[in-house]
Amino acid sequence: MKHGGDLISYRDFYKGNLIDFSSNINPLGPPEGLGEILENSFEKLKAYPDIKYRNLKRSVANYLNCEDKNVVVGNGAVEIIDNFIQLFDRVLVFIPSFSEYELRSKVHKKEVLKLKYTDDFKVDLQSLKDNIKRGDLLILGNPNNPTGMRIEEDVLLSIYKIIREKDGFLLLDEAFFEFCPEDYDSIEIFKKYNFKNVGIIRAATKFFALPGIRLGYGCTSLDIVERYRNIELPWSVNALADCAGGYIFQCKDYIEKSKAYIHEERKYLLSELFNLEGIAPYSTQSNYILIKLLKWNEEYVFNYFLKRGIVIRKCSSFEGLDGEYIRVAIKDREKNMKLIKSFKELGEY
Amino acid sequence: MKHGGDLISYRDFYKGNLIDFSSNINPLGPPEGLGEILENSFEKLKAYPDIKYRNLKRSVANYLNCEDKNVVVGNGAVEIIDNFIQLFDRVLVFIPSFSEYELRSKVHKKEVLKLKYTDDFKVDLQSLKDNIKRGDLLILGNPNNPTGMRIEEDVLLSIYKIIREKDGFLLLDEAFFEFCPEDYDSIEIFKKYNFKNVGIIRAATKFFALPGIRLGYGCTSLDIVERYRNIELPWSVNALADCAGGYIFQCKDYIEKSKAYIHEERKYLLSELFNLEGIAPYSTQSNYILIKLLKWNEEYVFNYFLKRGIVIRKCSSFEGLDGEYIRVAIKDREKNMKLIKSFKELGEY
Repeated sequence: MKHGGDLISYRDFYKGNLIDFSSNINPLGPPEGLGEILENSFEKLKAYPDIKYRNLKRSVANYLNCEDKNVVVGNGAVEIIDNFIQLFDRVLVFIPSFSEYELRSKVHKKEVLKLKYTDDFKVDLQSLKDNIKRGDLLILGNPNNPTGMRIEEDVLLSIYKIIREKDGFLLLDEAFFEFCPEDYDSIEIFKKYNFKNVGIIRAATKFFALPGIRLGYGCTSLDIVERYRNIELPWSVNALADCAGGYIFQCKDYIEKSKAYIHEERKYLLSELFNLEGIAPYSTQSNYILIKLLKWNEEYVFNYFLKRGIVIRKCSSFEGLDGEYIRVAIKDREKNMKLIKSFKELGEY
Repeated sequence: MKHGGDLISYRDFYKGNLIDFSSNINPLGPPEGLGEILENSFEKLKAYPDIKYRNLKRSVANYLNCEDKNVVVGNGAVEIIDNFIQLFDRVLVFIPSFSEYELRSKVHKKEVLKLKYTDDFKVDLQSLKDNIKRGDLLILGNPNNPTGMRIEEDVLLSIYKIIREKDGFLLLDEAFFEFCPEDYDSIEIFKKYNFKNVGIIRAATKFFALPGIRLGYGCTSLDIVERYRNIELPWSVNALADCAGGYIFQCKDYIEKSKAYIHEERKYLLSELFNLEGIAPYSTQSNYILIKLLKWNEEYVFNYFLKRGIVIRKCSSFEGLDGEYIRVAIKDREKNMKLIKSFKELGEY
């Protein structure tokens, strides 16, 4: 299983509604009122989406606080990652991280150099410096998946310094950006440099709870926007995702409420998990938690939870993690309590 | 302008509702009842689409009368074409044809060999035989865009014979299949051969009038399905397109009515156009008509129609056609009459 969220594959094992802790979606669901907007947009399905996505790019630019001309869009963040990969010769990733960085690189027959995060899952600056060369694409999750850790601001600036010195390119996958504490905004930092040698990707998928709509967006320098335009598929963002972009970013109350909610639940879930025997959770800044299993393997724990109607994410599919890690999403209080209850019972065996 | 349908770019030139004869969509619009289906599917946007598209592939297989396991799906036909291109080393196209065959090949740095259709826009079998070699991907529009011509059944079989002899691969782009007279069905023909060395692509875009929803599908041999799966992007079909697939193919009345409608309007429009001076229309089997301009160039005629609120398709962007061809879609009777009226007035200058 390369990805979370594939509940259909488990339906034969539990007769009831499965609770999905394997995919990391905002538990509050999409912004209210979106349904109505989409209903009124059915007419749009009868025409091609604007091939230049003029309105969508304006909405994204307003939301990201950058200029329209720096914006790229795609069929989910993963397509944007895929397009960036096509623009470079060699790809550097740190492991463990989102498996698609490597998979998409291989599809495009790009050399992939895998470096290791430090034992506490930080970027190893020395290793980066020693290995990166001109024209390399470095892809970093910020926060990283599955660790949930955000790159500290001073470390990010150190990484950028290395990137500029070596003339590489830094692609930040910030699909979970809004869930994180408000420390810094990479777009504010890098727009001062006109996004030179940097791309930043975000998406409606996770925070706006719209994985089904397929809307990713990002910003980068003008020269890369142009190269991106030359290789992207036409009409890759569907008409309803295009329309949704004109609405969701304006939902300020929803955005604030979601941030506060995740903040609270993260505090709750982490404090509960830290109290339990047999597991060692990592302190996350995102809406999911990586947990090291001290007494069981992932398979045992996965099946244990599945029997209780809960799907968690086994992590051995993340290279660099052996079979003793799982990942759980942060969901609403009721579900989080169920998860904790099951964890407690797991400890009793 | 590589593609039709980009009306936004012309809005400054005509203050009113433009009639779009540049994109070739079923004038009856999408099947009735689809809006309701989609409204009830908003919940699906909150989850990832089934990464294996099990239900969608079953619906497509039922519609195409093939097996689920032979089906591939994508974010519009163009993404499927793009994925096929990635699987082969060299691409053969006949010109004039859909520009994306060559463009997507170049994106993937594939060699492209361009052969010419005969003067009456038929596949040149001798030229094919002389040029194709082992491992080549031959992409043919059936019917071809912009000519509207379908490959005759015996010619198709001759092409397949060459493909098999040379161990090439034939990709039929049948995005306009349902608009054509019911002569033969390539899927019925090639499933007898287990789709060996053949892929057939269709889409909801044109016939089901859903360019905005982004739903393409096709069928091919099991070995190619597997290779396709290894390179396709995850979740490339959005959740509403996934749902739409469970509905539109069952709308038998709509399908029959649309076919009959296009048949009638094609007859009407062709007979009117053949009567006019200064133009030479090609006899199409699809829902669009290629027209050779005998007295004007495309730019003049394009601007002439634009001033009257009609957008037509200039064809010089199709390699192999000079600046004296245009393409018009077949629309509803009222609009078709407007088109003819404007053509008549054009002739009076």
